Amino acid sequence: MSQLWSQFVRELKPYVPGAQGGGEQVVKLNTNENPYPPSPRVTEVLRDFNAGDLRLYPQPESDDLVKTIARYHGLNTDQVFVGNGSDEILAHAFNALFRRNSPLLFPDLTYSFYPVYCKLFDIAYKKVALDASFQINVADYAGATGGIVFANPNAPTSLLLAQHALRDLLASAPDSAVLVDEAYIDFSSAPESRASAIALLNECSNLLVTRTLSKSRSLAGLRVGYALGSPELIEALRRVKNSFNSYPVDALASALAIASFEDEEYFQAMRQRVLAERARLVDALRARGFEALDSAANFLMVRHSSKKARGIYQGLHAKDVWVRYFDLPRIENYLRISVGSAEQNDALLDALDTL
Amino acid sequence: MSQLWSQFVRELKPYVPGAQGGGEQVVKLNTNENPYPPSPRVTEVLRDFNAGDLRLYPQPESDDLVKTIARYHGLNTDQVFVGNGSDEILAHAFNALFRRNSPLLFPDLTYSFYPVYCKLFDIAYKKVALDASFQINVADYAGATGGIVFANPNAPTSLLLAQHALRDLLASAPDSAVLVDEAYIDFSSAPESRASAIALLNECSNLLVTRTLSKSRSLAGLRVGYALGSPELIEALRRVKNSFNSYPVDALASALAIASFEDEEYFQAMRQRVLAERARLVDALRARGFEALDSAANFLMVRHSSKKARGIYQGLHAKDVWVRYFDLPRIENYLRISVGSAEQNDALLDALDTL
Repeated sequence: MSQLWSQFVRELKPYVPGAQGGGEQVVKLNTNENPYPPSPRVTEVLRDFNAGDLRLYPQPESDDLVKTIARYHGLNTDQVFVGNGSDEILAHAFNALFRRNSPLLFPDLTYSFYPVYCKLFDIAYKKVALDASFQINVADYAGATGGIVFANPNAPTSLLLAQHALRDLLASAPDSAVLVDEAYIDFSSAPESRASAIALLNECSNLLVTRTLSKSRSLAGLRVGYALGSPELIEALRRVKNSFNSYPVDALASALAIASFEDEEYFQAMRQRVLAERARLVDALRARGFEALDSAANFLMVRHSSKKARGIYQGLHAKDVWVRYFDLPRIENYLRISVGSAEQNDALLDALDTL
Repeated sequence: MSQLWSQFVRELKPYVPGAQGGGEQVVKLNTNENPYPPSPRVTEVLRDFNAGDLRLYPQPESDDLVKTIARYHGLNTDQVFVGNGSDEILAHAFNALFRRNSPLLFPDLTYSFYPVYCKLFDIAYKKVALDASFQINVADYAGATGGIVFANPNAPTSLLLAQHALRDLLASAPDSAVLVDEAYIDFSSAPESRASAIALLNECSNLLVTRTLSKSRSLAGLRVGYALGSPELIEALRRVKNSFNSYPVDALASALAIASFEDEEYFQAMRQRVLAERARLVDALRARGFEALDSAANFLMVRHSSKKARGIYQGLHAKDVWVRYFDLPRIENYLRISVGSAEQNDALLDALDTL
């Protein structure tokens, strides 16, 4: 029956996310979820939400949430776009900005959904090798005209590209939209104003920044992400979105996302807890013969001085400790480990000690 | 800055949904929302939902919801696909099934999002005129190879194509995927087994049926829809979805959608209330000089014997009664009016009497 499919469907290689489920006994450190719950304010708004209101469509442009995000980042509402998770926004951005006559550029090691979007939208791309220490070499992207995309901090490397380097990259490719995927930026130990590309928005009209509420705001289950950029780039996303799905963000998701932004104190406190646990986990892993890349994210990219990553991965899995292993060139000996709660991290360390 | 856009973005003509908002005083009969709230079971599940669980990603394939829907319709889980509203599913279906070498066929009057999807995915299409009484003439679609799509009951006409005609159509275009958009089917007064295309699923492997929880289940604000079809067609949707967004249905939306299916008694009761109000509204409008097409939906397509639709639309709008007017050939003298609650319908009738 596949003769009823559009031709390109046969050639798709869908993205495979880290495993979900597994039950209560699993120590789940494989998909970079936050070990702490969302703000109590989210629970409050959930409790007070009138299910009867769900009979009406939500705001098509999620006006209230857009306003909240614009205010939070000190931007105008025409610089903000929201979507059903940042993955949906990435999909729209690839379609809206990267179907060009020259190839899209992205690092050889970065979020593995990028080449999948390229296949979906028939976008030519070129992978640009990270340097020997897994850093982005900005000069490699100069003069690009087909678009540039990378995660910052990058995944799965966990490394942050410094703001001054971001500025250089943006200036060196003025004819190219540059998408900086900041899913993990809130876990940088530097303050946002000195780490995020957001500080460059007003000087770089070719910049689009994506964010998610899934990681630092503990709302992976809610599917809300957003993009920040020049009004021209945001307008491109709106046009594609309104040719695809008028109402991608449901009324409850919008209300709970707003609630999360209303509790800055909790947000900062949980952020600091993750950073403290990350520091402790790095030390404990080093003491066990691992080296870790310098993480600005809520996960660690580690390799052991003598043991193979695949074997450690399998050994941990057998003990119900889930981490992520990518069977890919250059990182076939690394494990990506989400920073869990103190209890989860202890369980990981215990499991490693018994391997 | 639009030189940073993909070329096709400039040419998009996004879909424009009926207006939202307007405030408490508006009698909102313009977007076919249900006047009654969702089942109390939805409220119960909402109240009991643990916001802490939102820190984890939802099931990528929405397994629990898929199982619930499969059981409800007596199908296998590989015949069910869920998405972020049926609009998202339609988008994926157009992409997955209608990017063909021959044009997609759909009626000249049907859901106006269809040509928008075609523009987005560069799908050639041919509009096939409904007959003089706005009915689909099945013979016009025989031998199609590029795909067929229409709403049944059709929108904005409100007319139902009989099941035997559906069967003929499906048999006459075996090399074409046929998408029957049943957003409104629950408002047919015939029982589902004699009205819906679902009864034909096991004999027609080229059939895909889409459904929404927005109308008959009063959950427009939640954004949940589903598709039913042969495993081959469902697999095409899965491949495209997993190249676009791994987790389109959030954990809360999934839980509340399941809750809705758990309360069949309420569902049937509200359905009957809408049907009863529809009958009353048709009689009252006829008594005021309107003629109405024979509606199998939760809206009426009406025209007045002497007054222009545009003037009535504007007059109602000035009185805070919102209905939908399409400035389109053949229906420029019709109004589409959602069936509201008894109070809303009375307010509409009162407003008409004072015009």
